[in-house]
Amino acid sequence: MLTFIGLGLYDKTDISEKGLAFIRSADIVYLECYTSRLMGTTIEELSAYYARPVHPLFRDDVEQHPDAFLTEAEGKNIVFLCAGDPMVSTTHADLRMRAAARGIRTAIIHAASISSAVCGLSGLQNYRFGKSCSLPFPQKNWFPTSALDVILQNLSLRLHTLVYLDIQDERFMTVPQAVDLLERMAADHQAAIPLYVGIARAGSGEPFVRAGTADAIRSVDFGPPLHVLVIPAELHDMEREYLEVFAGL
Amino acid sequence: MLTFIGLGLYDKTDISEKGLAFIRSADIVYLECYTSRLMGTTIEELSAYYARPVHPLFRDDVEQHPDAFLTEAEGKNIVFLCAGDPMVSTTHADLRMRAAARGIRTAIIHAASISSAVCGLSGLQNYRFGKSCSLPFPQKNWFPTSALDVILQNLSLRLHTLVYLDIQDERFMTVPQAVDLLERMAADHQAAIPLYVGIARAGSGEPFVRAGTADAIRSVDFGPPLHVLVIPAELHDMEREYLEVFAGL
Repeated sequence: MLTFIGLGLYDKTDISEKGLAFIRSADIVYLECYTSRLMGTTIEELSAYYARPVHPLFRDDVEQHPDAFLTEAEGKNIVFLCAGDPMVSTTHADLRMRAAARGIRTAIIHAASISSAVCGLSGLQNYRFGKSCSLPFPQKNWFPTSALDVILQNLSLRLHTLVYLDIQDERFMTVPQAVDLLERMAADHQAAIPLYVGIARAGSGEPFVRAGTADAIRSVDFGPPLHVLVIPAELHDMEREYLEVFAGL
Repeated sequence: MLTFIGLGLYDKTDISEKGLAFIRSADIVYLECYTSRLMGTTIEELSAYYARPVHPLFRDDVEQHPDAFLTEAEGKNIVFLCAGDPMVSTTHADLRMRAAARGIRTAIIHAASISSAVCGLSGLQNYRFGKSCSLPFPQKNWFPTSALDVILQNLSLRLHTLVYLDIQDERFMTVPQAVDLLERMAADHQAAIPLYVGIARAGSGEPFVRAGTADAIRSVDFGPPLHVLVIPAELHDMEREYLEVFAGL
């Protein structure tokens, strides 16, 4: 059996009771280490907390060489841990299908995801979010602008946009970096982004949330990762008030 | 202090370790009983599990008479429990602002929400969801069709729609009821909804997921509540395959 278990947002205690019980009764524990990261813990701390060895999995292990642990899952009780809620990343969905194709029973144990946590942190209403998007670090000769397209479309529909910020190895995009990138894109397209809401360390005891114009947000130190960004559409009164009270608008 | 704690999707063990520790050290424990419901447990079972009395809160308690427990929160450590992830409902956001206005410190402990869980259950990709909507039970002289507007707009943008189904006291809208309502609206608007994905008991050990046309889904018994519905846009290959494997498409 292969059970996908979400670890939630920040540290070892963000897992559900249900998930923790599954881990402690599993034969083998794997931790997916490439789509996101729990910044408030380490693999060593997780191993100690679960009283089980935790084996890291990198992209190649899952996407190129999954047979090793799928074979294990045919006879044993394997858990596959990941930050957030499982399956928000397509690589997990692909793995679940591969398992099913081999006749392996699968299950999912859910956990908090940044995609709903942003509502509580920002006060921006869940039903007003449109399509989300990712903002990658630009590379040499590659400066993708699809995030701006999504943002502008949502703004035109009066919908908020959740912008996932890139993680590459030990490099975590910050809110000010993201604002810089989006402002460059917007200038190239003669577009304007009126307001940003930056969020750092969601799920921790001290999340940091700030709302403001590009100029205001670019000069804020959001502190350690992970960061995420929301581009709000025109605010409802209650959303504005919430951002004034909890995000320094 | 007032701490909003999400209970996750289904039963008493869907809470995070962090949330459970907070509850067990709180002075007073309230459970919000009107926006959603944990179907896999009862208030008595939660009280026993937490080893604390759990006091139910109804809409009037929170929206009309919050002063009683806000006054308590000025001097004591109060926790406010709710199904799913807190603050997805606007009534929670309003309460947090009222607390802040009285100088009460607030915090949020996140948990799994149906809004991300649907991705794992259906294989429909998170970044392809547009605006979500709610489908209320029609009343005498009131047959709201705004859900259809949202669905049709999302379909035209090639985006999926999460449709929250109404809960009224002990009446829980089922997937087949929702499909009936939407088909009536669609017929009135000469519109067509090509595919439905119904989900029941998300977060339980036996979630039930079925994809198909209106005719196929209307005849399916989804079993006990809660139910939720997704209207997928044109499927990507991997989404289609996932629904074939895990949702009987």
